[in-house]
Amino acid sequence: MLILGIDPGIAIMGYGLLNLKSNRVKMVEYGVVTTSSKTNFADRLNVLYDNLQEIIDQYKPDEVAIEELFFNKNVKTAITVGHARGIQVLCANRNKIPIYEYTPLQIKQAITGYGRANKKQMQLSVQSLLNLDKIPKPDDAADALAVSLCHVFNQRFKEEFRI
Amino acid sequence: MLILGIDPGIAIMGYGLLNLKSNRVKMVEYGVVTTSSKTNFADRLNVLYDNLQEIIDQYKPDEVAIEELFFNKNVKTAITVGHARGIQVLCANRNKIPIYEYTPLQIKQAITGYGRANKKQMQLSVQSLLNLDKIPKPDDAADALAVSLCHVFNQRFKEEFRI
Repeated sequence: MLILGIDPGIAIMGYGLLNLKSNRVKMVEYGVVTTSSKTNFADRLNVLYDNLQEIIDQYKPDEVAIEELFFNKNVKTAITVGHARGIQVLCANRNKIPIYEYTPLQIKQAITGYGRANKKQMQLSVQSLLNLDKIPKPDDAADALAVSLCHVFNQRFKEEFRI
Repeated sequence: MLILGIDPGIAIMGYGLLNLKSNRVKMVEYGVVTTSSKTNFADRLNVLYDNLQEIIDQYKPDEVAIEELFFNKNVKTAITVGHARGIQVLCANRNKIPIYEYTPLQIKQAITGYGRANKKQMQLSVQSLLNLDKIPKPDDAADALAVSLCHVFNQRFKEEFRI
């Protein structure tokens, strides 16, 4: 089972692929797709769609886990990132891949057991849980692996309680 | 020159098509695309994309005019409608149709000459400017015709000042 985690964004979209096989998790790939603020906004959405489609074509993930947006202040930023996340959800859906959504709180709790963990604690947990030599960079890629891991834990939890 | 105006939304997307020929504007069609809140969110985005694609295929508009989102309170709504508007911009862009964006203030000023016009004043202006028998319904379709008209006025204004 291949899981594609997505950290949604317009300037940087993080992605992280994990393979889950008989309860063992292995990191397959991670990275980011970037779009320039010099590019026309509609074209940036197009770049995001096309690059995500390429990732899906290359790896053929079985499930997509994507972070929910959480903003408490800047409505303008919320709207802009909302556009980008809409594209990312649409692309997964048009490829008929089931989509699972997790809040930042759920992800933090799943990865560190602590809902108020800071960025550094999150990254160290991701590194440790996936047995990586170093912290995945950039941050957006580490965040994408975190949402992917959160989904793995949620699925495993469900299975343990399956009757 | 055929202009497609879009009033972005997730539950209701309004659209309004105007034909501009030697400075005369004629209403071609208007309506709405609706998605049910009972439908999965990702599928709603898909429905919006597919329906907008159908409208584009049927009418082949030369330009798209779309309202900018403006929210000052509910960030959650802003994010949700942001997703939908992202789909609508993506669809126009993937069809290589130039996209023009107008704020609610710009639209009100263009249609009524008054930035604080209320909904009823706006609708009466749209009806009058387009010589329609009645006010276009639902509201979202009238809003879409308004953004389309706003674009017509802006283009005409530019032409008058063309050297």
